[in-house]
Amino acid sequence: MTEVFEFAKRLIAAPSVTPARGAVFDAFETIIAPLGFTVHRFVVGEAPDGPVENCFAIRHGPAGSRHFAFAGHLDVVPPGEGWASGAFEPEIRGGLLHGRGAVDMKGSIAAMVAAMTEVPQDAGTVSFIITGDEEGPAVYGTRALIDFMREHGHQPDLCLVGEPTSVNRLGDMMKIGRRGSVNIWLSVDGTQGHVAYPHLADNPIPRLVAMLAELEALVLDEGTDWFQPSNLEITDIHVGNPAHNVIPGRAEARISIRFNDTHSGAELAGMITSIARKHGGEARPVISGEPFLTPPGEFSALVAQAVKAETGIEPEASTTGGTSDARFLRAVCPVIEFGLVNATMHKRDEAVAIADLDTLSRIYAQIARSALGA
Amino acid sequence: MTEVFEFAKRLIAAPSVTPARGAVFDAFETIIAPLGFTVHRFVVGEAPDGPVENCFAIRHGPAGSRHFAFAGHLDVVPPGEGWASGAFEPEIRGGLLHGRGAVDMKGSIAAMVAAMTEVPQDAGTVSFIITGDEEGPAVYGTRALIDFMREHGHQPDLCLVGEPTSVNRLGDMMKIGRRGSVNIWLSVDGTQGHVAYPHLADNPIPRLVAMLAELEALVLDEGTDWFQPSNLEITDIHVGNPAHNVIPGRAEARISIRFNDTHSGAELAGMITSIARKHGGEARPVISGEPFLTPPGEFSALVAQAVKAETGIEPEASTTGGTSDARFLRAVCPVIEFGLVNATMHKRDEAVAIADLDTLSRIYAQIARSALGA
Repeated sequence: MTEVFEFAKRLIAAPSVTPARGAVFDAFETIIAPLGFTVHRFVVGEAPDGPVENCFAIRHGPAGSRHFAFAGHLDVVPPGEGWASGAFEPEIRGGLLHGRGAVDMKGSIAAMVAAMTEVPQDAGTVSFIITGDEEGPAVYGTRALIDFMREHGHQPDLCLVGEPTSVNRLGDMMKIGRRGSVNIWLSVDGTQGHVAYPHLADNPIPRLVAMLAELEALVLDEGTDWFQPSNLEITDIHVGNPAHNVIPGRAEARISIRFNDTHSGAELAGMITSIARKHGGEARPVISGEPFLTPPGEFSALVAQAVKAETGIEPEASTTGGTSDARFLRAVCPVIEFGLVNATMHKRDEAVAIADLDTLSRIYAQIARSALGA
Repeated sequence: MTEVFEFAKRLIAAPSVTPARGAVFDAFETIIAPLGFTVHRFVVGEAPDGPVENCFAIRHGPAGSRHFAFAGHLDVVPPGEGWASGAFEPEIRGGLLHGRGAVDMKGSIAAMVAAMTEVPQDAGTVSFIITGDEEGPAVYGTRALIDFMREHGHQPDLCLVGEPTSVNRLGDMMKIGRRGSVNIWLSVDGTQGHVAYPHLADNPIPRLVAMLAELEALVLDEGTDWFQPSNLEITDIHVGNPAHNVIPGRAEARISIRFNDTHSGAELAGMITSIARKHGGEARPVISGEPFLTPPGEFSALVAQAVKAETGIEPEASTTGGTSDARFLRAVCPVIEFGLVNATMHKRDEAVAIADLDTLSRIYAQIARSALGA
């Protein structure tokens, strides 16, 4: 078995349900330090969203050389029930390495570390931006790493996030952007009363229904060259009135908007709030992430070239799917995401093809060399 | 103190939270039997809506004489907390007799029994249709009494229900009808999914919102000479989806319609069901009562005359408010409701003015005599 396989096994064997710290970072340090990296580890935050461990590892190239960063996370989602083998006991069955994090994204981190053996130190500066809080609220994770990098003058030129972006086959998709996300809690207050005496009550539900009908009819945009149209979903309605003969005093709903780069979270929050108020209600928006786009160009071309060289496939440049830590890293430098096949991520019996680990490691090595101009 | 006051005290002193049986019916029997009434008592039903005691008491007039019925209930709503004196320990304070059921409607039953001393037996047949289940689901109450009466050939010509219909002053309102009531449970099924991939899900909420918007905009009718317009209230909406990033698979709502005699429960249930289906949903209607109307005429005139003779007030002929057992008795003979001031009913420290008990007893005596043509 190859080095990347050994690295992946060691990372998977360290349980690290989000928020993660400790053992899995020890494992990471012991595999990256021998490759010439200086490792900075620090713990941030308190329960319930922390404590979270973060790690910034850097290997400096010659003075004035370019700086390529690889970003990822060592925390994983809870394993759940019904695994054929232990979620944190890496096991090979039929050419697949099984274990929580195999594709999302300990396998990807293993591939990038192994790739470093193929990238000479004089090619340029390489860093790893690794958090223990990507699968959780991400309050104490990559944002804290970005603060650390700013304070210490580490400024990458390009950043690759190793999320599992491939869909059916390794190499078929990279992400050049992600939509933003905002959840908005809506409420309408009224006056409770008896259904037989509606003139003495004030039913808030008709106002909420009219508000939701207006929101549902909104066309936010028609999409762009790189993004799908922004989308609004009503995800919950709650009144909680068990009494048949009672008009309730309050009605609530929640919507979720995934939006492209023709909008900002604040603009949408403001628009929804004014619609809510028009119907006598209130809105409480929580913005989870702004959209990002690294428009197709030099960076996406060099990723595509590396993928094609190793797989024969031209990766689709997509902006679909959920959010990732790229929403934070976009503020640092251009970001693209590329990684393993995501079919089993977050599911039981998560697994990666061992052959894919080797291929991915070669792709990452070529991306790093190209990004550094070597 | 007068006879009516003593009767009321004895009935209040027998706890009878719905569904009621036993002691309170014993008390009723001991006060009505000495007045020449034959008492039939029977218990119907099982938990949780039963067992319920019912009592039909009759005093026959001469062969071929008219038959006047008084209907009421000996069960009461739970007392709740915070009473100044015991809810089932009748107490006089400031001219008021306090206790659960004082106005709804043990006081009224006491007044009607006391009135019998003023109605000679040869004036005609008088009966009492008394249930222990009016405040509950009313499954085993007045309906069972109507069955009993039919089986035994008891057919009243007119029926007075002693519900507390007066609002500010004894005599200011009688009910010549009541609206019907139907509750309808609505549901829309969809397919659960992730908000980032709406094309893989099918959100049921927009269809429910469109359905509710259409229902809310319905104008059922403009009201009649005797009824307010029928009214539809959305009383609950339930989705129950705690996850911000999940599109739910099912959405539910409940509506309540109070309707006048231009509709039937079945017709409304059918109309709402077809609207629900148009929006891809389903409707489950439960009809709690059909409307009734005893159009103003001889019966209402004799009630009004009796009220005016004793109080100086002309009672308003109303059809407002909730449902009562008149919804069942309407099938037997013309029904009108008249009784005490309802300000304290179902509240803590329920109380009746002692003077009102005497006045009401005289009003009932005159109504009975007039109804019997005496």
